[in-house]
Amino acid sequence: MRKAIYPGSFDPVTTGHIDVIQRATRLYDQIVIGVAKTPPKKPFFSLEERVDFLVSSFVNQDKVLVETLEGLAVEFAKKHQAEIIVRGLRAVSDFEHEFQMAQLNRKLDPDIETVFIIASPNSAYLSSSIVKEIAQYKGSVKGLVPPKVEEGLKKKFGFSYS
Amino acid sequence: MRKAIYPGSFDPVTTGHIDVIQRATRLYDQIVIGVAKTPPKKPFFSLEERVDFLVSSFVNQDKVLVETLEGLAVEFAKKHQAEIIVRGLRAVSDFEHEFQMAQLNRKLDPDIETVFIIASPNSAYLSSSIVKEIAQYKGSVKGLVPPKVEEGLKKKFGFSYS
Amino acid sequence: MRKAIYPGSFDPVTTGHIDVIQRATRLYDQIVIGVAKTPPKKPFFSLEERVDFLVSSFVNQDKVLVETLEGLAVEFAKKHQAEIIVRGLRAVSDFEHEFQMAQLNRKLDPDIETVFIIASPNSAYLSSSIVKEIAQYKGSVKGLVPPKVEEGLKKKFGFSYS
Amino acid sequence: MRKAIYPGSFDPVTTGHIDVIQRATRLYDQIVIGVAKTPPKKPFFSLEERVDFLVSSFVNQDKVLVETLEGLAVEFAKKHQAEIIVRGLRAVSDFEHEFQMAQLNRKLDPDIETVFIIASPNSAYLSSSIVKEIAQYKGSVKGLVPPKVEEGLKKKFGFSYS
Amino acid sequence: MRKAIYPGSFDPVTTGHIDVIQRATRLYDQIVIGVAKTPPKKPFFSLEERVDFLVSSFVNQDKVLVETLEGLAVEFAKKHQAEIIVRGLRAVSDFEHEFQMAQLNRKLDPDIETVFIIASPNSAYLSSSIVKEIAQYKGSVKGLVPPKVEEGLKKKFGFSYS
Amino acid sequence: MRKAIYPGSFDPVTTGHIDVIQRATRLYDQIVIGVAKTPPKKPFFSLEERVDFLVSSFVNQDKVLVETLEGLAVEFAKKHQAEIIVRGLRAVSDFEHEFQMAQLNRKLDPDIETVFIIASPNSAYLSSSIVKEIAQYKGSVKGLVPPKVEEGLKKKFGFSYS
Repeated sequence: MRKAIYPGSFDPVTTGHIDVIQRATRLYDQIVIGVAKTPPKKPFFSLEERVDFLVSSFVNQDKVLVETLEGLAVEFAKKHQAEIIVRGLRAVSDFEHEFQMAQLNRKLDPDIETVFIIASPNSAYLSSSIVKEIAQYKGSVKGLVPPKVEEGLKKKFGFSYS
Repeated sequence: MRKAIYPGSFDPVTTGHIDVIQRATRLYDQIVIGVAKTPPKKPFFSLEERVDFLVSSFVNQDKVLVETLEGLAVEFAKKHQAEIIVRGLRAVSDFEHEFQMAQLNRKLDPDIETVFIIASPNSAYLSSSIVKEIAQYKGSVKGLVPPKVEEGLKKKFGFSYS
Repeated sequence: MRKAIYPGSFDPVTTGHIDVIQRATRLYDQIVIGVAKTPPKKPFFSLEERVDFLVSSFVNQDKVLVETLEGLAVEFAKKHQAEIIVRGLRAVSDFEHEFQMAQLNRKLDPDIETVFIIASPNSAYLSSSIVKEIAQYKGSVKGLVPPKVEEGLKKKFGFSYS
Repeated sequence: MRKAIYPGSFDPVTTGHIDVIQRATRLYDQIVIGVAKTPPKKPFFSLEERVDFLVSSFVNQDKVLVETLEGLAVEFAKKHQAEIIVRGLRAVSDFEHEFQMAQLNRKLDPDIETVFIIASPNSAYLSSSIVKEIAQYKGSVKGLVPPKVEEGLKKKFGFSYS
Repeated sequence: MRKAIYPGSFDPVTTGHIDVIQRATRLYDQIVIGVAKTPPKKPFFSLEERVDFLVSSFVNQDKVLVETLEGLAVEFAKKHQAEIIVRGLRAVSDFEHEFQMAQLNRKLDPDIETVFIIASPNSAYLSSSIVKEIAQYKGSVKGLVPPKVEEGLKKKFGFSYS
Repeated sequence: MRKAIYPGSFDPVTTGHIDVIQRATRLYDQIVIGVAKTPPKKPFFSLEERVDFLVSSFVNQDKVLVETLEGLAVEFAKKHQAEIIVRGLRAVSDFEHEFQMAQLNRKLDPDIETVFIIASPNSAYLSSSIVKEIAQYKGSVKGLVPPKVEEGLKKKFGFSYS
């Protein structure tokens, strides 16, 4: 069985993340999503909310597991007997950072390989922060996030947009 | 009549911004500058100051209007019956972010087009944050910002440089 | 009346070029497409074919004019009383080259401004050379080029693909 | 069984390519190397030589198969019942081109996924053309290519370097 | 005597910085390291600690001087009669920022030249913030920082890793 | 005495190259320009012409030496007892290629260091091929190349522009 992890903040999950995960399920037997307990930036949604959005996006998909992640990605991979870290690439600026993280992870544990999947062109402009910015200014995020996240954003910003 | 908006933080306006606006006045009948009320980063100058620096830079230029902007750029454009968002490009790193914003704005409102103008090579290194950093360390910002901004920076940092 | 030129090799025109031209017609009163007589690389299609593919793509569109271009883009612009050069941007590598050309054209003629439009995400991977490569290997170019170019490619490569 | 293809010109194979293939063998059950019969640039080594260099680099490695490739990569993948195209990334300029090819291949056949592996930092500067340039000027290519390629370069350039 | 300055936050110094400094000592007669008193981001290590880590890394190396820096780099250079600012480059994203700073410094003082040295490929992924992130999650930073910094990180994070 | 080499095709030398060389003369005691006998692309100007344009641009400048270069840059450096290769950087696309060449040269000879100088913003768009393109289409190259190169271009293209 070939397992891969997909670590991130998912604050909140977007349809871009979901696209990457769906593609990854065709490549690997199991994808363990690692939701960072303490992301670099203070998260907007709580750990429970971020996990919940992901769980409800992958109901009945046995290949996808949602777990919380604390510490280094390579440790999380080892704990789950995964030898692969999956990352999505959207743009050159992603690439540089991801490239450095992949080199670093290889140094921390040479048995774990990072593989990159290209996000679909229609989600190339999507990011969790852009989604929050649009919601904050009452723009519609329909199609940019799963329905449950759309609801969550409405609640947080205390108004209804359509 | 062809109207364009030019949204930003302008904290403070630099000669690079002014170069872009001047070029835009040759391309469009009216440029509505949208000064963000709540920029992503807490602004150094107040909204009033940021607006005032711009107003005093375009005295007697009927084609240039300075307004405050709250919410999404595409909404601001619609409110002002503008179909064009003007952006200046200085460097590759600008490009990636601007590219994503343009794709996003096109999704939010397909009737509004983003057009990019290349900043002059002499202002390629200029940014509002670099100007503040120089002023903070008592370097001269002459020629990097309009005279009124130069004064404003002097007052804020409480010393006189020449 | 605001005129813009759109210079290029168009060897052959792709739906990416057509997307850029369509967007430009909403921004300007007239777009003069300049088909390079002697592009940097020896063209695959003759000047007549390249012009013909463009003409047949813009039948009944009064705003779009197809002309042949010899010499510098700024001269072509002046000849057609246009003050604007339109260029499409797809990727960072485009950007660097286009950036240099825009700076150069500004030096050659400061009255002519280059404005950039972002190509739609679905044509970001499209280029004339990729289209020729696919056709050469009998891949389908449906949707990547106008129907008449599809036919032209079939004839040149002497086989029918579907 | 999970199969992947690794298409390229391999003119000649470098230790950078070999590093990517070795990593790929840990991720997939079989790697079919596709050596392009007619690469975009006229090849320096004949098809036989390019294949031979690869074959001799993977003696006794059952997971690696060397085949010749004519036509589109997605067709080659289908022919070999592979659902994965493996590509190595070294630098930003690689990334842009690879990104476009991946988008294109996805359009040509949505069932085939391109995955990217990062080359090791020590081979980031390596390319087939750089290797040929060094050999041409009598520089040592030891460690940059497999021993058999080193010999092949010596023969072609008609001198012995050490 | 040819003097160069090497300004930065060094929060903390990594083996990447040390690699750049060692290379610079072969190019110049003296390298004055300028440790920023007030870096853009609030530093993790105190000014004393940051200076101390550097001093202990260059014991008995007469060519290397460690000083604290307040204000603009060009002023620091002038104060030390240096005409050269040395910077290390690791990646494209570095390049853009460094490029802008070099243009700016040239405008602030045309007599001071910025020269760039390429970091070794093995430290291309290294940065002070990545080192702190690894230490925070109890990963090993051996080889990424000098031994004294390794100890310092252990103390700060209150645990022992090996 | 500190010597540096500056290798290139110089087909023809532009004011951008001259800017880099002038800056380098302030940093090193001698600059040996290495004009490639057999550049990657077939040169437009003969070796004699390319050397001659450079020689006449540095009359009475004892620090600058013009030599022909055959083979590897590191060998040329050793032959001239130089430990430094100077390169100018204009843009990100330059950077990637230069970065790889610097890594490669370090592997070929670890005693020779490549240092990069930023070209002035006004020559960022300048390249030998752009200059030839302008001249070919009868555009003015005044200020883009030394006067003697301007004449040389006029002769080659058989007409007089002003």
